[in-house]
Amino acid sequence: MFQRVAIIGLGLIGGSIGLALQRANAAKRIVGYDPGEGVTDSARKIGAIVQSYTALSDAIHGSDLVILATPVGAIRALLQEIAPALSPETVVTDVASTKAQVIIWAEEFLPAHAAFVGGHPMAGKEVSGVAAADPDLFRHRIYCLTPTPRTRPDAVSKVCTLIEILGARVRFLEAAEHDGQVAAVSHLPFLASVALVNTVTQDSAWSDAALLASSGFRDASRLAAGNPEMYRDICLTNSSSIVRRLDDYIAQLQTLRESVAAHDRDMATLFADARHARLQWQASQQEEDS
Amino acid sequence: MFQRVAIIGLGLIGGSIGLALQRANAAKRIVGYDPGEGVTDSARKIGAIVQSYTALSDAIHGSDLVILATPVGAIRALLQEIAPALSPETVVTDVASTKAQVIIWAEEFLPAHAAFVGGHPMAGKEVSGVAAADPDLFRHRIYCLTPTPRTRPDAVSKVCTLIEILGARVRFLEAAEHDGQVAAVSHLPFLASVALVNTVTQDSAWSDAALLASSGFRDASRLAAGNPEMYRDICLTNSSSIVRRLDDYIAQLQTLRESVAAHDRDMATLFADARHARLQWQASQQEEDS
Repeated sequence: MFQRVAIIGLGLIGGSIGLALQRANAAKRIVGYDPGEGVTDSARKIGAIVQSYTALSDAIHGSDLVILATPVGAIRALLQEIAPALSPETVVTDVASTKAQVIIWAEEFLPAHAAFVGGHPMAGKEVSGVAAADPDLFRHRIYCLTPTPRTRPDAVSKVCTLIEILGARVRFLEAAEHDGQVAAVSHLPFLASVALVNTVTQDSAWSDAALLASSGFRDASRLAAGNPEMYRDICLTNSSSIVRRLDDYIAQLQTLRESVAAHDRDMATLFADARHARLQWQASQQEEDS
Repeated sequence: MFQRVAIIGLGLIGGSIGLALQRANAAKRIVGYDPGEGVTDSARKIGAIVQSYTALSDAIHGSDLVILATPVGAIRALLQEIAPALSPETVVTDVASTKAQVIIWAEEFLPAHAAFVGGHPMAGKEVSGVAAADPDLFRHRIYCLTPTPRTRPDAVSKVCTLIEILGARVRFLEAAEHDGQVAAVSHLPFLASVALVNTVTQDSAWSDAALLASSGFRDASRLAAGNPEMYRDICLTNSSSIVRRLDDYIAQLQTLRESVAAHDRDMATLFADARHARLQWQASQQEEDS
């Protein structure tokens, strides 16, 4: 289906895409590029790519599909660097966590004939790196695409073929819409977790309180262990959506604070609302899994 | 070691204590009381108690150890009700999540000769009810005791014997200290999770955003599924400690909000602080487990 696929960035996502394409026999040639020490060797060993390049432009040349599988912080420079090597036959897509800014960069730096489709697979693992790559990582997961009116339909269709091979379900939405939604369900939970850990661990009684921290603290603090630079770049490229959600969140906390301070028994209604919504979401997830 | 132990409230905690005592052959007679339909029958069937009573005072009479194994919301009425049935030989302890208010109630309602020791085992499960009872629930877990200068040493020693049988590790601390620490590591995470779920699910785009919610949202929202009435009673009895932590938390969120709004790259330092503290806590937990 594909002649030559170039995967730029061979971490968990890039490696998993390579493995899935390889297993499906969906590309004549899968090549890769990653500046990390030993990364392309590992990717070749597990069969995520068949060939690696030390020059980015060599990886791009002659590819009909280029997948930028890096965090959003690397996308700007990559787009600038690959621009001269792109032919009109090459479709470029990315997997970064925010989309509006990526599309602005693509329109700014790629030549007019280039075909770019913004993408974001909703898949991940607690571990990162090519060693954790898994051809089933995207199976039954949602894969967002954010084409603009300027995006070539044949390019969208090519990326949809990729998504089908991965076993994922494509979901089309506007870049701004996407960014608003991930701000709510992904970036806000991260920041809530960071603030929680900093609040609790910077208290003078932390060394004692730590002994009492149990599964509740464990779950609520897990996201705070995420990569700081990756999340910084997400926040830098999705600032306004995130600030809006943080303001809503702080307002909710203020309401809770007033209830608790006033010993207002009606606070149980707020707790029950949250419980109901959480259980409903959980049930919808289980339906999807089955 | 014990002649007659009365377990008042046969949920996960009460049932697990009964099973552990039974298995260790540590009491001549374990009796129980629970007003819930069919609960004492279930507790007898699994062997957590050998006899149940429909009158609370009958369960108390002649017991050398009475364990109030209910949420904090039930403790006040229980103390009032058991007071007339207590002899000087009876030691009373509880397992409720907050301690200062419980001790005030005990001093107010129990007779002067009564021996009360406030307790709080740091153990739990996602499921509740006697069917989930497990004699190993407390194994290697911390069990807080909050004796006051007025608490009889022989009563403390009796409860320590219980804790030893459970396989838990006793930790003595002041009631106010305990309440401050659980406010940070347990009650604040719950409220943070409630506010997160209400923020995200009350947004007009929730039905779409829900499709993108994944493991991050799952972990950060898990605590919000907790029992609303139980948490209301916790907040009512630990209000000032919780409000203090909520204020600290809101301040941390404001700092993050300003950084994100200002596109301040130094926000990565705040993320790195949280990551470091979370990983350090996680490592300390693994040490304890091994």
